[in-house]
Amino acid sequence: MMDPIADCDLQDFFAWLRIPSVSADPARGGDLHRAAAWAAEYLATSGMHSRLEDTAGGPPLVVAHAPKVARAPTILLYGHYDVQPAVVTDGWTGDPFEPRIIDGMVVARGATDNKGQIFAHLIGLRRALARGPLPLNLTVLLDGEEEVGSPHLRATLRRLREELQCEAVLISDTSMVGPGWPSLCLGLRGICCLEVHVVTAEADVHSGMFGGVLPNAAEILCRLLAEARDPDGSIRISGLLDGLSSPHPEELASWATLPWNEESFVAAARGRTSHGEPGYGALERLWSRPTFEINGFTSGYQGPGSKTIIPAAASAKLSLRLVDTQQPEEIARKVETFLRARCPSGVRLSVDYDHGALPYVLSPQHPLLLAARRALAGAFGRPAALVREGLSIPIVALFRRELRADTLLVGLGLPDSRAHGPDETFPLEHLAAGANLHARLLGELARELTPNLSQVSGAAMRHDFLITKKH
Amino acid sequence: MMDPIADCDLQDFFAWLRIPSVSADPARGGDLHRAAAWAAEYLATSGMHSRLEDTAGGPPLVVAHAPKVARAPTILLYGHYDVQPAVVTDGWTGDPFEPRIIDGMVVARGATDNKGQIFAHLIGLRRALARGPLPLNLTVLLDGEEEVGSPHLRATLRRLREELQCEAVLISDTSMVGPGWPSLCLGLRGICCLEVHVVTAEADVHSGMFGGVLPNAAEILCRLLAEARDPDGSIRISGLLDGLSSPHPEELASWATLPWNEESFVAAARGRTSHGEPGYGALERLWSRPTFEINGFTSGYQGPGSKTIIPAAASAKLSLRLVDTQQPEEIARKVETFLRARCPSGVRLSVDYDHGALPYVLSPQHPLLLAARRALAGAFGRPAALVREGLSIPIVALFRRELRADTLLVGLGLPDSRAHGPDETFPLEHLAAGANLHARLLGELARELTPNLSQVSGAAMRHDFLITKKH
Repeated sequence: MMDPIADCDLQDFFAWLRIPSVSADPARGGDLHRAAAWAAEYLATSGMHSRLEDTAGGPPLVVAHAPKVARAPTILLYGHYDVQPAVVTDGWTGDPFEPRIIDGMVVARGATDNKGQIFAHLIGLRRALARGPLPLNLTVLLDGEEEVGSPHLRATLRRLREELQCEAVLISDTSMVGPGWPSLCLGLRGICCLEVHVVTAEADVHSGMFGGVLPNAAEILCRLLAEARDPDGSIRISGLLDGLSSPHPEELASWATLPWNEESFVAAARGRTSHGEPGYGALERLWSRPTFEINGFTSGYQGPGSKTIIPAAASAKLSLRLVDTQQPEEIARKVETFLRARCPSGVRLSVDYDHGALPYVLSPQHPLLLAARRALAGAFGRPAALVREGLSIPIVALFRRELRADTLLVGLGLPDSRAHGPDETFPLEHLAAGANLHARLLGELARELTPNLSQVSGAAMRHDFLITKKH
Repeated sequence: MMDPIADCDLQDFFAWLRIPSVSADPARGGDLHRAAAWAAEYLATSGMHSRLEDTAGGPPLVVAHAPKVARAPTILLYGHYDVQPAVVTDGWTGDPFEPRIIDGMVVARGATDNKGQIFAHLIGLRRALARGPLPLNLTVLLDGEEEVGSPHLRATLRRLREELQCEAVLISDTSMVGPGWPSLCLGLRGICCLEVHVVTAEADVHSGMFGGVLPNAAEILCRLLAEARDPDGSIRISGLLDGLSSPHPEELASWATLPWNEESFVAAARGRTSHGEPGYGALERLWSRPTFEINGFTSGYQGPGSKTIIPAAASAKLSLRLVDTQQPEEIARKVETFLRARCPSGVRLSVDYDHGALPYVLSPQHPLLLAARRALAGAFGRPAALVREGLSIPIVALFRRELRADTLLVGLGLPDSRAHGPDETFPLEHLAAGANLHARLLGELARELTPNLSQVSGAAMRHDFLITKKH
């Protein structure tokens, strides 16, 4: 049985959506503050101890704590109150900051990303607090800069590390598989970003005067990079694929049921063709296999007409998506070793590691996941799909690093929510289901985590993860 | 016996050098006109029928004819009175337009390129005319836009085709092998310029969301281009090297005597290493073998930091230097066929031919060359080195196309003349030797060309060249 969304809940939601809290727009500082204050007030009137936390340069964070429950675990609910830019001329059918309901969908900027998904939790939280103490400790943390990369979050997390200590983070900022079909995101790929430079001479030279004797930096870099993968996309770099374990069989089984096929995926990306490692399905290649991509390549003359030079320098930006136990720095070393072994003598090669992120993966049998799966099945009436994302979500890595806490990614948006685009939508049904889910999640997580609290500290959870993921 | 340069000759030369006829500078139109008028006047006072010819947009051409000699062949002496830009702050040790003599060298902008080389001929011509009628018909054509690509020359050549008809063109705008060591340039490489585009999707996509399924345009282009040559520089493109004949044995013998080695050549170009086709000496690779060069490559993101995309498009500018009988359009087709055969299906590939030039080569046994070799040996007291250039000189192709005349490239500059650089120099000795050479050249060319004039028309000369070059 699901409680419907009351009119007053909807009025509250619309009031929040009307505040144009666009973090990318320097003129919207006041609106960001208003949106934060609105949320802090909503949480306070729900029974939370809430406040605005200054971030020394950015909009404030909303920090709120439910009344303390002794000897109970703590969950941190993270969301963001800032939104992407939107003006009606982008293709909206109405004012993006005047919410409307069309065919059961709320249409407004932020409807899904992230005000709608977080407000479903806030309704659920208000209802739960009205019924009595929560079954665990809950902290709410709302960011005002997620859409611009959360530049001040890390420093604030470090400063408030004690206060924000938790057993797990809960984020609803991803997609469900389809309407009414809940999903849990169990894995994110890591990344290793590099820049490669090849130098063959001090300056470009005349291709007529020197062609036949001086080597060509662009050609050498082309050859080096062409050797890093087979034409089908299989990575050739020595040792890069060694010892990678397969996804949990339960995940592979779930992936096989998804309403997904490679052809429509390629068509949606307006691609002309696809490729991939033989022996792996497309979702495996997207979610659980590493990649090697040239993100950019520059050398010599690139203007109109022709300039008959032999370029003395060429460079490329590379990024590799990482999975399983791959470490960005170690992968960078393997790439460098591979390229260096193939670089002609006398040619200067530099491989500069720019930045990286660890891959993130949780076993479907992880206690947190088992609890979330029960809650989702209860709230939506069908088992949650177990999915992954091929990209990295830096905030997840940030929580793991700064709070030593793993993250549950419980998406409530639709795949075609048009987040970031015009006419962003969020189904009223998901608002109700999300509110219902919130209470169930708190209950299930409390049940899963409380009996042996001493074992579910960050370190123990990761240990458990390492064991179970070998399945 | 060589006539020394008289003081009055030097004063004339300096007067011409003082005019800053910089064709690249739009403010120098008046100076260009003055430099042209100065040369026309000098030729007129030497006994030539001279005039300024309007080029409809550019500075005038100087056109001058020696008094007509019936039933004698005609030689066209081509040079240019415009110079490269020069300001003292470029590194000059004095005003670039105030000529000085330092250690027997004239130092000024244009000292070698091309006022000095052409003025050596003008002194020789004035002396010859003072002695009586020339042994042949001589036309002098001085360009005011050579340093900016002679944009108006072609149209003027077409308009004046009748008037400028000749059996051969004589140009002194290249280098001697060393001081006092004359040289004849017998060959220039042609060129074929192309642009290649690869498109894999309509737009760049997120490397995390699509990496593993969508192919990478930059990588595909890298692989295509890497396959076009072996790492040593040998071209792999099918049929591109078929049927190329070797240089004349007399040329190879001359190349072996040149004061030249690959190491210092690479060092002078500030290169870090060299490469080349096995089985060919460095001069063969530079002068008589084709090349394949990437002149520029562009794809994806090239700004600071990283942008994790899979680029949907990549392009490269290519140029091939051509030799022997290679035709630019046919070479472009071979490159396209090679790349298309290797391009993965579904990927859009375009290969656009931009422009090209035919290779140019004369046999050392060509009658024109035999005459020039006798003249050079007489003027400098040692046999001329037989050299080539690896580059194309568009004017030579222009004269062949518009006037159907072959060109004698008789360089009078030093290899380290610093043409285009600061403190450009020209040895006074070469001024005297060049003046002496001029009269000898006219005599030898008249002797070689007059007896059977009917056989040395443009077409017949090329026929002769085609036979003798098979040696």
